[in-house]
Amino acid sequence: MGDAFPQAAGRMAAVADPVIAQVGALMRQRPQALSLAQGMVDWAPPPGVSRAVALALAETDRRLDRYGPVQGEPAVLEAVRRELTEERGLDLEGSELLVTAGSNMAFNAIAQVLCDPGDEVLLPLPFYFNHAMAIRLAGGVPVPVAAGLVPDPDRLAAAITPRSRAIVTISPNNPSGLVTPPEVLAAINNLCHRHGLVHVSDEAYADFVHGSVPHASPGRLPGSGGHTVSLFSLSKAYGMAGWRVGYAAVPRQLMGALAKVQDTVLICPPQVSQRAALAALEAGPAWCRPHVEALGQRRRQLLAAVAAARDGGLAVELLGPPDGAFYGLLRFPCALDGESLMRHLVLGHGVAALPGDSFGLPAANGLGQLRLSYGMLDGPDLDEALRRLFQALAVLDR
Amino acid sequence: MGDAFPQAAGRMAAVADPVIAQVGALMRQRPQALSLAQGMVDWAPPPGVSRAVALALAETDRRLDRYGPVQGEPAVLEAVRRELTEERGLDLEGSELLVTAGSNMAFNAIAQVLCDPGDEVLLPLPFYFNHAMAIRLAGGVPVPVAAGLVPDPDRLAAAITPRSRAIVTISPNNPSGLVTPPEVLAAINNLCHRHGLVHVSDEAYADFVHGSVPHASPGRLPGSGGHTVSLFSLSKAYGMAGWRVGYAAVPRQLMGALAKVQDTVLICPPQVSQRAALAALEAGPAWCRPHVEALGQRRRQLLAAVAAARDGGLAVELLGPPDGAFYGLLRFPCALDGESLMRHLVLGHGVAALPGDSFGLPAANGLGQLRLSYGMLDGPDLDEALRRLFQALAVLDR
Ligand SMILES: Cc1ncc(COP(=O)(O)O)c(C=O)c1O
Ligand SMILES: Cc1ncc(COP(=O)(O)O)c(C=O)c1O
Repeated sequence: MGDAFPQAAGRMAAVADPVIAQVGALMRQRPQALSLAQGMVDWAPPPGVSRAVALALAETDRRLDRYGPVQGEPAVLEAVRRELTEERGLDLEGSELLVTAGSNMAFNAIAQVLCDPGDEVLLPLPFYFNHAMAIRLAGGVPVPVAAGLVPDPDRLAAAITPRSRAIVTISPNNPSGLVTPPEVLAAINNLCHRHGLVHVSDEAYADFVHGSVPHASPGRLPGSGGHTVSLFSLSKAYGMAGWRVGYAAVPRQLMGALAKVQDTVLICPPQVSQRAALAALEAGPAWCRPHVEALGQRRRQLLAAVAAARDGGLAVELLGPPDGAFYGLLRFPCALDGESLMRHLVLGHGVAALPGDSFGLPAANGLGQLRLSYGMLDGPDLDEALRRLFQALAVLDR
Repeated sequence: MGDAFPQAAGRMAAVADPVIAQVGALMRQRPQALSLAQGMVDWAPPPGVSRAVALALAETDRRLDRYGPVQGEPAVLEAVRRELTEERGLDLEGSELLVTAGSNMAFNAIAQVLCDPGDEVLLPLPFYFNHAMAIRLAGGVPVPVAAGLVPDPDRLAAAITPRSRAIVTISPNNPSGLVTPPEVLAAINNLCHRHGLVHVSDEAYADFVHGSVPHASPGRLPGSGGHTVSLFSLSKAYGMAGWRVGYAAVPRQLMGALAKVQDTVLICPPQVSQRAALAALEAGPAWCRPHVEALGQRRRQLLAAVAAARDGGLAVELLGPPDGAFYGLLRFPCALDGESLMRHLVLGHGVAALPGDSFGLPAANGLGQLRLSYGMLDGPDLDEALRRLFQALAVLDR
């Protein structure tokens, strides 16, 4: 009987299973587990957000309840324009702006718009799993490129084919925390321009920089707007993941096609979240700074725990300096596949982290990778989570 | 120079331009125009919605700010389950539930999950434009079927090919307002089951019934869950279009694939909108009833205006009794394409409505179609809009 029921299309098999749901299912079996898996911070949004929403609820015109413009409310687009130009220095000459229900949605829309079946999108390794999933959904082919943690433009150039449509960079990086130097992003942006590709620059972690390498948007380059997609999110720096707001600067000539996707998928961004976004943008990156600075202590805890584990004889290392976002990418002796590794960590040792498999880095040659997030844990809890983690890894090494 | 910029993929040309944006652009040129174009109602949400959101803002755990489960918050899923079983009588035995940011998003996810390139989805004419757009985005082929306003299951059966994946019904219908009799929906549902197709039943207007034919979900049929997608929206009956909440009962065996799409596109529905949804679902369909009943007066204004125009010698008619939703589909002598017709109406006569082209019904044989919405206008404004409309149509007839 079950066989008679309609099944999903064959191409869905190429789209990865959501790893966050997998780790969530394991965590429910072990409620005391500590999570180094979440891509989220633990602070609340700017106080103006609640106030703005409360005010909006009291308005009599109830614009909150009506469909709005596809690209976003004019006031929000204006605030985004101000932030992107005045705070981040983007050249928006060739760009349009788009507000989405989270920045994942903007990436999905871009993938839909760029890919004919078989078109390729270059993803420097490690990549963010939802990028690969979106490209597959759009009928495109994600092409992972081992270009180095600081992606080498020449190695990316070597991977370009007649089917290439775009190169994606993520800086500061998820999962490695690495901040790509501005001149490297500039070189990749120029490479895209020369080859008629779009440079999709995912800057969800733009405000999370802890080291000496600054973050500079490739969209700052004069004239870059016509071939650059710059993606930003309120989920991370503003502690607003649940509100689902992202925004993007997109090449103007793609806006018509992007509006088709947005109209089909979302119609318009949620009005209430746009009011919240307006208040957050008013607080601005300056509001986020002390929160980001406070992460420095947790980052030091991570570095210290890794150093202690090495001193204890465990051959672990952080790949690339974890100088951005709130992640570190750990390499360690391991032969388990990602799912077994997650089970070992959560069920066996009460600590969760995401396996490299999700980012295009499965265990190989006896070495595995894990993304460690310090966004949701601090103080003794973070220390305890790291203690459990290295204990679990020591067991694997025996 | 402009030519060197990356362009949208070729397949985007097959996705229609959003008609709502087109009419919006015309309306901005003629701010005094009255709109019969909007797919929206003019009442406010249940009062509990504002209260619930205000309470949520004051919570200290700030769950509002965190990512939630992919399918939706457990409390919302539970409220949806109660509504679908107790109020609407669905058999959810073979189903899972999914909350999305508007019901368009659920349709988009279903299209993504069902279509391999070239797979066909049958759309009885007239169809809802965003359905056709979503199928194209997914790489599928929308197959409009002239099966009659009350879709004839035999004519649908004749359009089934080995590539068919689903049949979509919309009852009450956008754009015609027609309520499809329960036995016809049941026959189509059985047809789908026999052919291994999914029946996608778009019930965004489930609570809008003004005539004697009742609306009954095909998902009520025992055992239908494994091959039926039932789509619902808070946008219409609850006056909550701006909050972007829809929900769907979907075949259980498709849930894994749907979760992949939702994770990629949205991650999770906006938390604040889910709080609003919970309050709306608590008010329930009973709360909507007086609002829907009050539309009866507007519907009579529409019927009277059409009758008066006919008496005046204009060969107009409403296709199918407009007994549901808040639409009527008008046929009239016209040789203009949809865009020219819209320009004529808005710029020439100060009234907006959507051309049949958007619903798969372009002008043919000297007859055009328009969807008339009475969701946002009433009393003298509605009368004035209808007066302008029939004047504009009389001009075309000369
Ligand atoms: C690199 C990157 N981009 C985008 C996102 C998604 O953010 P949003 O919540 O805005 O959809 C994430 C979230 O983890 C991310 O890591
Ligand atoms: C038939 C139909 N389905 C779905 C929708 C979209 O509703 P939502 O606002 O829930 O995305 C509409 C809106 O016009 C509609 O007419």
